[in-house]
Amino acid sequence: MELEAIYHRPKLNWSYARDERTVHVRVRTRKDDMKLVTLIVADKYVFESSKQEIPMRKLISDALFDYWQAETTPPYRRLCYSFKFTDGEETAWLTERGFQAATPVTNIGMFEYPFLNPADIFTPPAWVKDAIFYQIFPERFANGDPANDPANVLPWGGKPEWNSFFGGDLQGVMDHLDHLNELGVTAIYFTPVFEATTNHKYDTQNYLKVDKHFGDNALLKRLVDACHERGIRVLLDAVFNHAGGTFGPFLDAKAKGESSEYADWFHVKEWPLRVEDGVPTYDAFAFEPHMPKLNTENPSVKKYFLDVARYWIEEVGIDGWRLDVANEVDHRFWREFRDTVKATNPEAYILGEIWHDSMMWLQGDQFDAVMNYPFTNAVLDYFTKRLTDTEQFASEIGALIAAFPEQATISAFNILDSHDTPRLLTQCGGDHARMKLAALFQFTYPGVPCIYYGDEVGLEGGADPDCRKCMEWDPVKQDADLFRFYKELIELRKRHSTLRTGEFRFLHAESGDMRLAYERTNQEERLIVAINNSKRARKLVLKGCGSEWRDAWTDATVPSTGNRLELTLPAFGYRVLKADN
Amino acid sequence: MELEAIYHRPKLNWSYARDERTVHVRVRTRKDDMKLVTLIVADKYVFESSKQEIPMRKLISDALFDYWQAETTPPYRRLCYSFKFTDGEETAWLTERGFQAATPVTNIGMFEYPFLNPADIFTPPAWVKDAIFYQIFPERFANGDPANDPANVLPWGGKPEWNSFFGGDLQGVMDHLDHLNELGVTAIYFTPVFEATTNHKYDTQNYLKVDKHFGDNALLKRLVDACHERGIRVLLDAVFNHAGGTFGPFLDAKAKGESSEYADWFHVKEWPLRVEDGVPTYDAFAFEPHMPKLNTENPSVKKYFLDVARYWIEEVGIDGWRLDVANEVDHRFWREFRDTVKATNPEAYILGEIWHDSMMWLQGDQFDAVMNYPFTNAVLDYFTKRLTDTEQFASEIGALIAAFPEQATISAFNILDSHDTPRLLTQCGGDHARMKLAALFQFTYPGVPCIYYGDEVGLEGGADPDCRKCMEWDPVKQDADLFRFYKELIELRKRHSTLRTGEFRFLHAESGDMRLAYERTNQEERLIVAINNSKRARKLVLKGCGSEWRDAWTDATVPSTGNRLELTLPAFGYRVLKADN
Repeated sequence: MELEAIYHRPKLNWSYARDERTVHVRVRTRKDDMKLVTLIVADKYVFESSKQEIPMRKLISDALFDYWQAETTPPYRRLCYSFKFTDGEETAWLTERGFQAATPVTNIGMFEYPFLNPADIFTPPAWVKDAIFYQIFPERFANGDPANDPANVLPWGGKPEWNSFFGGDLQGVMDHLDHLNELGVTAIYFTPVFEATTNHKYDTQNYLKVDKHFGDNALLKRLVDACHERGIRVLLDAVFNHAGGTFGPFLDAKAKGESSEYADWFHVKEWPLRVEDGVPTYDAFAFEPHMPKLNTENPSVKKYFLDVARYWIEEVGIDGWRLDVANEVDHRFWREFRDTVKATNPEAYILGEIWHDSMMWLQGDQFDAVMNYPFTNAVLDYFTKRLTDTEQFASEIGALIAAFPEQATISAFNILDSHDTPRLLTQCGGDHARMKLAALFQFTYPGVPCIYYGDEVGLEGGADPDCRKCMEWDPVKQDADLFRFYKELIELRKRHSTLRTGEFRFLHAESGDMRLAYERTNQEERLIVAINNSKRARKLVLKGCGSEWRDAWTDATVPSTGNRLELTLPAFGYRVLKADN
Repeated sequence: MELEAIYHRPKLNWSYARDERTVHVRVRTRKDDMKLVTLIVADKYVFESSKQEIPMRKLISDALFDYWQAETTPPYRRLCYSFKFTDGEETAWLTERGFQAATPVTNIGMFEYPFLNPADIFTPPAWVKDAIFYQIFPERFANGDPANDPANVLPWGGKPEWNSFFGGDLQGVMDHLDHLNELGVTAIYFTPVFEATTNHKYDTQNYLKVDKHFGDNALLKRLVDACHERGIRVLLDAVFNHAGGTFGPFLDAKAKGESSEYADWFHVKEWPLRVEDGVPTYDAFAFEPHMPKLNTENPSVKKYFLDVARYWIEEVGIDGWRLDVANEVDHRFWREFRDTVKATNPEAYILGEIWHDSMMWLQGDQFDAVMNYPFTNAVLDYFTKRLTDTEQFASEIGALIAAFPEQATISAFNILDSHDTPRLLTQCGGDHARMKLAALFQFTYPGVPCIYYGDEVGLEGGADPDCRKCMEWDPVKQDADLFRFYKELIELRKRHSTLRTGEFRFLHAESGDMRLAYERTNQEERLIVAINNSKRARKLVLKGCGSEWRDAWTDATVPSTGNRLELTLPAFGYRVLKADN
C-alpha cells in the first residue's frame, strides 16, 4: 500500500457541495493500489451514533493515480469524515492527522466539511450545460452594412493581416441567424464589440459604446432580441484586465501625468507614462503599450467596470460575460463582479479566459466556467497532432475530470480552437476524418461545446491572424459534409441528456493503441462512443457491456453476443451506440 | 524516484504571495527521495529570455514527505513555473500537464501564479505576530463590582457547575490590569461579554449591550481605553453562527411563526419552532435548542451582524474579533465581515474558531488566523499525554508548517488550553516540569501564544465546566514559580524577534527519543532550544552548529568544541541558547 500517493484536503475538487443536500468527497491513491476505499462519515456532534461507511467508487484514473468518489447527504448538513483503504493485505485509515492503523473513534482530527451553506455552493446557471456555443469574431463573420465599413476596408475573403479590416459587423450577424438556427447552436460568444482601434477590439476605447464599424448600441439590442426570439443566448467579451491605449482615462493620465484624476486607474511604475526599451513604464497586457493594465483595486475603477457589466445586461439583455485575461485580475474584483452580474441576472453565465489550472476561480464565488484549454490540448494532442496514444489521452482526460467538481466539468467551455489558436481543420492538416473525431469527442464529452465560426463549413487558417479569416458564405465553397456532420453532432447532443450530464467512463483506452471507447450514463440513458483514431480499419471488442445496442443515429440494432460487443471501425471511423432499454 | 508522492497545485500553501513582490512556491516529494529540487520560473510573455532556475530548500518534513520551498520576485509580477527533480540517478520535470523527461521549452502547460495582485495577498495585521495574548472568561476572572452580581451568585472560588455564577465582571478585569502588565501580555481575548442568560454568554440575547452582570457599554469602553493605555489590545468574541434562545428575533419567530418578520433569520425546517425527540425543528449549534443557527445568507441578518461588528470597533475601540464556530458560517458572510471590519479598522485582528484544517479561511479574504488546535493537539500529545516520540511530534509540526503560508503560521493563535478544554496543568497531571516544557515550546514556536487566564498562577481544572474555575487572587495560593516562568518566557519572546518571525528548523528529532532541539533563525539572530522531555537526565549533542553560544537568559557562555555542542539536560530540563554574533 503506497501511503505516499494518497492525497486529500477538504474543499476544492476534494470535497464539495454538489447541491444543497449533497457533498461529494474524493481521494486519490496510487493507480491499481487499492481494492476498496471507504468513506466514513458522521455528524460531529453525535459522532458514534451517526457514523456510516460508504464505499467509494473509482471515479477515474490518470497516469499515476486512481481517484475515488463517494456522495453523501448529511442529515444536518454537517459532515466530518475519514477514509479507509484496503489493498487486500493491509488496511489503513486516513484522518486529518495522518494515517492510523485503526478506525477513528472520535470526531477530533477527522476531516470536516463543516456546514453545507447554500451561499457557498458552486452553481453555474442550469441552461449552460445544455447550450451549444458558437464563437463569432465580428469583424470577420459577415458584412451586413457596407455603410459602416472602415475607410481602409479590404474585399471580403482576402488574406487577413494583423491590421486588416474586412467590414464585418452586427448587421452581418443579424442577416445570418438562419445559418445558426439551421446548425442548431443555442448561444453565441462574441469577441469584443465595443469601440476600439484594432480589428479584434481587445483595446477598448469606450466600454459603453458599440464600435461604429460594427453598428451601434441600438442595433446590438435588436440583435440580442432577435437571438433570444430564436432561442439563442448571447455572451459579450469583457476586457477588464486592460484598456485600450485610446481609453479616455488612459489618455488623460498620459497627458496630465501624476496630477490626472485617473492617475491611479493604472499600475504606474514611473511617470510620465512612456515606453523604454520596448517596455512600458506601466503594467500592460504582456508588454503591449497599447493595452495598459487596469488597477481593478481602485474603487473608482471597480465601480466603473461593475457599472459596465451591469449596463449591458440591463440595457441590451446579454446572457453573460466572457472575461478576457481573467487570471491576471485580482480575485476580489471577480467576486464583486459575480455579485453584480448575478444580482442583475441570476442566470447570466460568467466565463473566464484561463489557459492553466482554473480551480481557484471555480469555487462558486467567481466564475461559472473557463475556456477549457487543458481539454483542448489533450484532444488536439491525441486527435490532431497525434502525439499521444489512447492511454495517455485517457490519462490527461482523467486528470482533468479529477481536478474539478462535477458541476465545473459539466459547465466547462470546451473549445478546440478560437481566435487565439490555429483552426481545427488546419491543425488536422485539412483531414476531415480527424477533425470529425475531435469534434465527436467534444460533443460527446461533459462540458459545453463551442464551435469557432466557420469551422462548420470547412474554414481553414493557421495561427493568428490567419485563423481570423472571413466567413465563407458562398454555398458552393462551404463544406456541406462538415456542416451536416456538425448539425448531426448538435442534434445528437440535444437528444441525449446523458451526453450533457451523464457520468463519463472509459471502456477502452490502452497503451500503444489508437482505439478509444467510452460510455456516458445517467438514470435514463446509456451511450457508448467507439472511435478508431488510426489509419487502418480495426475491430474493437467491448466486454461486459450488458445491454442490447442500437446505432444512436440510424436506430439500427447493433449485434452483440451476450456481454460482448464487437465493432468494426474503418480508418478514423466511429460508432455511437445507445442502450436499448 | 517516486513520482506518485509528488504534489503541487497553485495557490493556497503551494504557491502564494508572501508580500507585494515575493511569491513562495512549494512542492512535496517522498521523504528522503530527492537530492535536488529546482524551481524553474519565467515570465510567460518572454518565456525563453526570462527563464531562471532557483534551487529549492527543504522547508520541513513530516512522516512521509519532504516539503521544498523557493522564493522568487517576478519582475513583472507574473509568474509561470515548473519543477525539476533529481534523485542522483534520474531527473524528471513537472508541469501542470504532468511529468516529462525533458526541460519545458514553452510556457504552455506551465504552472501559473498569473499576477501578484496586492488585493489578494494574505496580510494579517503587523502587530499580531508580536502579540502575547491572554484569554479571559469574564465570569471567572475577578469580581470587581459585587453590586452587579446575579441573584444566585456563589462564593468566589467554589467548584463550577455548568450553571454556576461567581460574579466575575469587567470591573474585575479593570482592577487587575497590573497583573497582566506585570506578566507582560499585550492583548486580551475576552469570551463573550454581551447580554445572555448563561455564564459563558455564548447564547447572545442582545449583541449591542454588555451583560448587566459584567457592567455596561461605558465600562467596556473605559476598560478598552485603560488596556490601550497600558499597551494591551482587546479582542471580543463574535458569536454570529447562532444566537441565544432569548434573542429578540428568535423569540418573535417562535411566537409568530412563519408570519414573523424574522422568520427567515433562522434555518427553519418545520414551523412552529419546537423541539422533537431532542432535535430542534430549526438548525442549531450542535442540537442545542437554546442556540438557533443564524441565517447569515439573509441580507437583513448580514446587515445586522456587520453593523454589530462595526459598532464595537467604532464605539468601544476593540482591536478585533474572535469568531465563534466560524467554520459553520458561510464563506461569503466572512468575506463581507472582513471587508467591514478592515474598513473600520485596517489593523483589526480576525481570529476564527476552527478546530480542523483551516486553509480555506486563510487565503487573505476571510480570517487573519484561527485558534490553532492542530498545534495544541500535537504539543499535548508529546509533552503532556506523552503519546508520541520526538520524531512523531516533529512530523506533526512539520505537516502543520507545510500546510500553510508562512504568514499564516506566524500569525496563528497558538493555545494549549481554553475554556473548551481541560487546563494545561491538569493535562500534565499537575506536573510543573512538563507544563513548562509545553509552554516553552509554545513561546519559542512561530505563532501568537495565548495564556488561558490562571494558567500562569497554577490554576487546575478538568473538562468544562471545571476548566472555568475562578481566578486565584490570593498571593499565597498563586504559584509564584509558574508566574515567574511565564513572565520569563514572555520576556524571552519579546527580546528575540527570531522567535516571532525567524525560520523554524528541527535540529534533533529522532525516533524512540524524547530529546528535542530546534533553531529559530532570522537575519539578526539565531536561537537554539534544547529540550529533554524524559524522566531522566540526558546528554544532547548537536553537531554542525557553528557559532559560539550563550544562555539566552543568563548570557553565560556555553562551552562548545568546534562545531559540536554538548548539552546536559536534567529530567524535563531545557536550555535556550543564542548565537554569540
